[in-house]
Amino acid sequence: MSMRNVAIVGVGITRFGVREASWKDLVLEAGKSLFDDVPNLDKKDIDSLFVGAAQPERWIYQTHVAPLVAELLGIEVKRVIARTESACASGQLAIRYAWLSIATGLSDVALVVGVEKMNSKFLNISQSSMINVGNREFDGANGFTAPPFFAMVAQRHMHLYGTTEEQMAMVRVKNQEYGSQNPYAQFQKKVTVEQVLNSRMVAPPLKLFDCSAITDGAVALLLTSEERAREFTDTPVWILGGVQHVDAAHTTNQMGELADWVALRKAAKDLYDMLKITPDDIDIAEVHDCFTISEIIEYEELGFCKKGEGGKFIEEGESYIGGKVAVNPGGGLLANGHPLGATGTRQAWEIVMQFRGEVPKGRYVDGAELAIAHNLSGMAQLHHIMAYSVNKPRDIKFGR
Amino acid sequence: MSMRNVAIVGVGITRFGVREASWKDLVLEAGKSLFDDVPNLDKKDIDSLFVGAAQPERWIYQTHVAPLVAELLGIEVKRVIARTESACASGQLAIRYAWLSIATGLSDVALVVGVEKMNSKFLNISQSSMINVGNREFDGANGFTAPPFFAMVAQRHMHLYGTTEEQMAMVRVKNQEYGSQNPYAQFQKKVTVEQVLNSRMVAPPLKLFDCSAITDGAVALLLTSEERAREFTDTPVWILGGVQHVDAAHTTNQMGELADWVALRKAAKDLYDMLKITPDDIDIAEVHDCFTISEIIEYEELGFCKKGEGGKFIEEGESYIGGKVAVNPGGGLLANGHPLGATGTRQAWEIVMQFRGEVPKGRYVDGAELAIAHNLSGMAQLHHIMAYSVNKPRDIKFGR
Repeated sequence: MSMRNVAIVGVGITRFGVREASWKDLVLEAGKSLFDDVPNLDKKDIDSLFVGAAQPERWIYQTHVAPLVAELLGIEVKRVIARTESACASGQLAIRYAWLSIATGLSDVALVVGVEKMNSKFLNISQSSMINVGNREFDGANGFTAPPFFAMVAQRHMHLYGTTEEQMAMVRVKNQEYGSQNPYAQFQKKVTVEQVLNSRMVAPPLKLFDCSAITDGAVALLLTSEERAREFTDTPVWILGGVQHVDAAHTTNQMGELADWVALRKAAKDLYDMLKITPDDIDIAEVHDCFTISEIIEYEELGFCKKGEGGKFIEEGESYIGGKVAVNPGGGLLANGHPLGATGTRQAWEIVMQFRGEVPKGRYVDGAELAIAHNLSGMAQLHHIMAYSVNKPRDIKFGR
Repeated sequence: MSMRNVAIVGVGITRFGVREASWKDLVLEAGKSLFDDVPNLDKKDIDSLFVGAAQPERWIYQTHVAPLVAELLGIEVKRVIARTESACASGQLAIRYAWLSIATGLSDVALVVGVEKMNSKFLNISQSSMINVGNREFDGANGFTAPPFFAMVAQRHMHLYGTTEEQMAMVRVKNQEYGSQNPYAQFQKKVTVEQVLNSRMVAPPLKLFDCSAITDGAVALLLTSEERAREFTDTPVWILGGVQHVDAAHTTNQMGELADWVALRKAAKDLYDMLKITPDDIDIAEVHDCFTISEIIEYEELGFCKKGEGGKFIEEGESYIGGKVAVNPGGGLLANGHPLGATGTRQAWEIVMQFRGEVPKGRYVDGAELAIAHNLSGMAQLHHIMAYSVNKPRDIKFGR
């Protein structure tokens, strides 16, 4: 198929964390940051708007959020407007939809906003509402939220492959090393393996520092076609492709081996085949480290190392900048926090900043040309990957 | 732009109404209905899934609904999966995304499911949750849900153009005339103008029968490209195009004249220009008659009659089958009920059934070739239109 090439040509971000700001404040802050980043942008140029948001219906008692963002940022949408949701991956979904809409020519210049306001001064609904992400009547009714699920995953991985708590802790150490150089991250202090191991137990073997946080934050991205990209930036970041895969929806049913993320392996293979690349070609991997064990399994399923060797991979420093592949050089979900709808867009923000060379030296991946961003949603049964490059896409055939 | 042609090649539906069925039951019922409709379909053919759902987070305490549908219907998604939301138009958004994804070649065969379970035996949350659709802190906090808003719209239209309560009632009479011949509709009895006028007052001048209902229901659609359409059906229904327009997000801000739906007028002009058609070319118009006054204003803004003459248009029978254009020949939202996420997909179902000639004679639009489906979401500031035809798209240029 012949499609238009699509690039990210502008970015905006808020500080992530437990913010005093309201949901609307976060949208305004990310929007202003984007408009500051793209001085040539006239709001009238924007014809489409895609909002990634997981469940504002629960956290801020508001649905129909896409037109609300349009109003807040003063945008008259003329072609396509949508809010996309897939829990923890809602932000990446908004990018994917914008990409396809521009690729067809229906949209020309699209704004993508990923946003979530999870913390509330008045209501203790942040965690309790996470029960809605699983199959509520089965997993949810049994209290099976993310921490106990990923704890079971970690136990299985330790049992099958000898992965250690120390190796998991090393993931957090790496991601805080980079997060300490990211002024937008929720957590900006370095940590040691001992600090992770000694942090409060959440669900054995996962300690507090093995877990990502409940976070408020927003990211805005500007996307357009090749024809117009240079109007807005000298350093467009091209979208090469993206796939998703789900093969078992909920844990109570057919997921099978918990430490074996088949859907991710299939998604990665499909993406690599589509783009005619191998894992060796990837310079930067933004992956969904909602828990330290997740990043270890993602090394394996994305093909950066053999199955079962993810623990060794971090231990040998292969996922640091300068190793085999730079994984989460912005600090990942662990350092940045995980405002569900914003996370996928924050990964794209990081990749753009890396390709532009606008990150501190200590976390800069010099010479990077190809990056992927991975999200999982729910109980690791649904995986979402997109690929970005400083180089324009070669002729890519999507069909099988 | 060169895009692949995309068709609806299969349909499934549930009975709409206050159903004993759970949300999951509705999905299964619509899915079975679809699989029965397309005997040649192997579930393995389906590579993508798009779910339109407005706020299951409030009505069934469940988010992350797209993978739940995948599990319920036994589908391994390999390419694209998303839940789309734009309140009352959530279903149409799912169709639009599927269309674009197939058009690019990323998806090949896509399932679209629009679903909403709004009635609950245990919780009185159906109406109270509708407050989330508006700008909750402003419109919502003032109790400004749909009925009072559309009542004000009706008052303005009566004041400016002399529209009468009788004319509004005639919209319901027409839609029940057709709804009485639709075995899936929530309300299947004919009504008279007097019955509408004498029904309980809700918000002056709107009586109970001027309002659509709180409804449970689901619809499933199968979409594929021109290359594969004939594998599944002899009567593909082609998607010609679609646009959306929002120019003022919430009523408390800049909407301006309530009886003047500028965003719809702009969307219709854009669509007609894109497809090189005029309102005269349209045989069937499925429009968003959430209230009787809405359908009257939609006649005007879609260009079927002059501004202000919508009341006269229904009075003279021009929106009946055999009139200028057949509007809501399946009974519209008024007869079918309005399960938010399912409504947009139910309109597509109606158009497919019409083009196939599979509806009862008394509501069949003989010889129809071109249809549009219109939704509004929120307080009439955001409009969504798609166009369908029995004929393949001519060369359509989306760019401006």
